[in-house]
Amino acid sequence: MGSPTSNFITAPESLDSKHFNHLNPEDLRTKAHKAVDFIADYYKNIESYPVGSQAQPGYLKNRLPETPPDTPESFDTILKDVQNDLIPGITHFLSPNFFGYFPASVSSAAFIGEILCTGFNANGFKWIGSPAVTELEMVVMDWLGVMLKLPKSFMFSGSGGGVVHSTTSEAILSTIVVARDRVLNEIGIENIGKLVVYGSDQTHSTYKKACKIAEADVEEGTTSTTAVDPVKDLAEVANKYNIWVHVDGAYGGNACICPEYRPFLDGIEKVDSLSLSPHKWLLCYTECCCMWRVRLDGELHGLASGDVARFRPLRLWFVLRSYGVANLQNHIRSDVQMAITFERLVKSDVRLEIVVPQRFSLVCFRLKQLNGFDSSYTESLNKKLLERVNSTGRVYLTHTVVAGIYMLRFVVGATLTEEGHVINAWEVIREMVNTIVNEF
Amino acid sequence: MGSPTSNFITAPESLDSKHFNHLNPEDLRTKAHKAVDFIADYYKNIESYPVGSQAQPGYLKNRLPETPPDTPESFDTILKDVQNDLIPGITHFLSPNFFGYFPASVSSAAFIGEILCTGFNANGFKWIGSPAVTELEMVVMDWLGVMLKLPKSFMFSGSGGGVVHSTTSEAILSTIVVARDRVLNEIGIENIGKLVVYGSDQTHSTYKKACKIAEADVEEGTTSTTAVDPVKDLAEVANKYNIWVHVDGAYGGNACICPEYRPFLDGIEKVDSLSLSPHKWLLCYTECCCMWRVRLDGELHGLASGDVARFRPLRLWFVLRSYGVANLQNHIRSDVQMAITFERLVKSDVRLEIVVPQRFSLVCFRLKQLNGFDSSYTESLNKKLLERVNSTGRVYLTHTVVAGIYMLRFVVGATLTEEGHVINAWEVIREMVNTIVNEF
Repeated sequence: MGSPTSNFITAPESLDSKHFNHLNPEDLRTKAHKAVDFIADYYKNIESYPVGSQAQPGYLKNRLPETPPDTPESFDTILKDVQNDLIPGITHFLSPNFFGYFPASVSSAAFIGEILCTGFNANGFKWIGSPAVTELEMVVMDWLGVMLKLPKSFMFSGSGGGVVHSTTSEAILSTIVVARDRVLNEIGIENIGKLVVYGSDQTHSTYKKACKIAEADVEEGTTSTTAVDPVKDLAEVANKYNIWVHVDGAYGGNACICPEYRPFLDGIEKVDSLSLSPHKWLLCYTECCCMWRVRLDGELHGLASGDVARFRPLRLWFVLRSYGVANLQNHIRSDVQMAITFERLVKSDVRLEIVVPQRFSLVCFRLKQLNGFDSSYTESLNKKLLERVNSTGRVYLTHTVVAGIYMLRFVVGATLTEEGHVINAWEVIREMVNTIVNEF
Repeated sequence: MGSPTSNFITAPESLDSKHFNHLNPEDLRTKAHKAVDFIADYYKNIESYPVGSQAQPGYLKNRLPETPPDTPESFDTILKDVQNDLIPGITHFLSPNFFGYFPASVSSAAFIGEILCTGFNANGFKWIGSPAVTELEMVVMDWLGVMLKLPKSFMFSGSGGGVVHSTTSEAILSTIVVARDRVLNEIGIENIGKLVVYGSDQTHSTYKKACKIAEADVEEGTTSTTAVDPVKDLAEVANKYNIWVHVDGAYGGNACICPEYRPFLDGIEKVDSLSLSPHKWLLCYTECCCMWRVRLDGELHGLASGDVARFRPLRLWFVLRSYGVANLQNHIRSDVQMAITFERLVKSDVRLEIVVPQRFSLVCFRLKQLNGFDSSYTESLNKKLLERVNSTGRVYLTHTVVAGIYMLRFVVGATLTEEGHVINAWEVIREMVNTIVNEF
């Protein structure tokens, strides 16, 4: 290489503004070590915070300035504000006393994977953008496919394949669009108003959103009080009418890596697509939703990732290797075992009833409807129970309504949860049942 | 609290499978420090790697096993594989010698923000899920709005608001759906086939994808050789016909935090929505795309985030506070200054021409069409130039085609780039021009 050829080049020292240490490796090292310690300490002390945030609407606006600073603030100042201003507004999904929604399962392995993913900032929006991103996605999707014993038609090593999406919404939307276009190719776009998406009455609101985006109507089909539809029977009917069948195994689907749960996927060879979210039960942190499709076409990546695609499969790869299949199966079984323990505790109390039999690591229960009280009164008592339990800050549960019945949901799955936490949670619930009953 | 009431509770020691150290704080601390050091060292040594990956299709599949391990592998083994198997498949967007696509701008501040975002695993899918996530998003969207001098109609403190999306695709899709539904409410769904989205011929492929998903046709409208359409004029015409106007300021929009670039947003008070991506030029790492909309409705969050919403605004908040507005303005100006330097160097060589005048930090140039040679021959020479330049591994450029003319793109914006890198890149290009010219 020669030396610069022109004499009008600005000397580097004139570009002072570039020297902010944006990415000085030693500066980054020091600060990132502090951030890691912050998170490790957060996990160590997580039980000292109320599980559900007790913040009131607008709390943060009042604590932060209305405009950004004109000059830099120190790292330590910002970190202190995270502790004082943000943490009180966080509901601690990772607390061992969190039993709400669905599990937010995480692990050191996935945390490491995410640090590396962020650090590389690699962009797999197409193969050439970073071959490792696209190819690692193919490897982990097939690995997970092997663990689930998926047919070859779903595998890259067969005639299908898949994508690691960020969310179920994204996965579902991309599936509905492909399914819609397959039908519209046959019936013409002027008939778009006739499209219908069938789902069980247990279907996640995600579907309704995705259908709205893609312009299709939704009808509730099967009415079911269990969270698992019979794949084989539905697929056989759907195949007759050329209906695209998607199986959303968001949470429970993860359990199918265990032979004893695999029967839930019987008939999977008759469906068109499958999704499940390792962020829900395979220790991956949000956002990690895997979606397989048979007869993969070139569009899969494009629809999924848009203009940027992070190195998302890295997390799942770290988890699968750090645990191995056997330990991941045991992890699922351990959570289920704890749910069984909780169900037994509920059954031991005559004032409560199990509304939906325990499945996977979920238990749905409520205060019984007592003679002489109507159902809306029972509902109000159960609402009161949930509020009281959550306002202690010692545990966090959520609720659902199925077939008109309001019930409390207890999901085991936060990574730090051990059996002692389940027993403590039961004690809190029992205590609150006592206070409510004593108010009669 | 009382003690456990039942005697059938399984003793905790029988749940061995739970004790994998999934999230043991000290285990996490040790490993995460190693991961941070790995990334700090990666940044320190990033210039030792070829900028563009030299991997061949399928390279990774051949290096990794076809099935996941049944038992755990050690952290050090996996990290070694990242170094040996993954890094060769990465195109180093963060290399100071990367001048391709649009800038992948990052910073220690955003890296820290992302470590915390991951660590908390907070989920703002609705306010109650974690108030801090929703409220911090409102704060940073308004802060950035202040920096861009947006009208009150775009601000939460006014009558609008916004969302930190992951990608432009997501932002655009949510906008197109809202715009579509506004029109369909008036004309009826049976007319969906009549919907048209107008965009300039410079429009990103993202739009075409989003339109396909929402079922609308695309027409190219204005033909422009500059990347900036006149917002005010277009909005005035569109307002007459009740057309939804969206301004996508993906990359250049970031520059509007500088008073000298703000005129590009003149007329913004006449449009319906605006998006820009701080991950492109405001040091945020992918994925961070801000989208504002006037007359915000309750759906905004729902359509955006789906079933999970990470604590994404945290990164932008860390960046805005760590730099302050003045330094962020200087950062933009410094990149532009380096692009001007590069343009001067190109102009100093009579064999080359600037095809599109330098705008922001982008320079588009090519080998001139020489007398006696047709345009397709010129194109093949320029393709050869790009291939040769990239195959050195010393720099990475991409190309574009505007109005039928193939040209090379040189974008300054990788965080580590200093003027010396721009001059070195020019030397590599000149060297390759020499070899091509000498082959005549």
